[in-house]
Amino acid sequence: MTDREQGNEFLPKFDAAGLLTAVAQDAASGEVLMVASMNAEALARTRETGLAHFFSRSRNTLWLKGETSGNTLAVERVLVDCDQDALVLQVRPAGPACHTGARTCFYRALEGDVLARHG
Amino acid sequence: MTDREQGNEFLPKFDAAGLLTAVAQDAASGEVLMVASMNAEALARTRETGLAHFFSRSRNTLWLKGETSGNTLAVERVLVDCDQDALVLQVRPAGPACHTGARTCFYRALEGDVLARHG
Repeated sequence: MTDREQGNEFLPKFDAAGLLTAVAQDAASGEVLMVASMNAEALARTRETGLAHFFSRSRNTLWLKGETSGNTLAVERVLVDCDQDALVLQVRPAGPACHTGARTCFYRALEGDVLARHG
Repeated sequence: MTDREQGNEFLPKFDAAGLLTAVAQDAASGEVLMVASMNAEALARTRETGLAHFFSRSRNTLWLKGETSGNTLAVERVLVDCDQDALVLQVRPAGPACHTGARTCFYRALEGDVLARHG
């Protein structure tokens, strides 16, 4: 057991690319809405503004979730895992979290070998 | 909108390292238990056995969650996100999910600048 695991100091562990994984979860329903990456700046902006910011690996840029759609995620609580390389953001979504218009990005379930919409 | 997003074909998208992100969520409580990586083999074994398998980036090896502790995760449902590079495993945990003995790896919340245990 290390201080990182047992202590009260926030020591986010970024990987070689400077990223950690953030899971956005609906604070009311518990539904997982999306999974994205954060770099140190995305984490700092999220903490400063209370709105979820992520880092896009494909576009190599910081983004405010909902910047164009208006579908921001207001962060109520940040949970931190044992080795501090993953965060759960418990959020109040302003609208559909997924760019497809679905409430959550996880709108399909694996049933046998195919995907089916659910919920 | 692409087939990958809208279709019913399961086309998991692994990154350059051959991995995707898996979030294990308690099927009963909705609590997020852990976040880990899966390679194609971990995903195949999970589907074959119904028990969550992951790929350890630090040890560079496939692992059955709970192999030594007995604290396996029985997978009830697999949810797939829009671009198919992240999965939510809805699971029934056989015991504490975290190697620290905590029910979930996310046993601390960020309160101001420090971490506090919760739940």
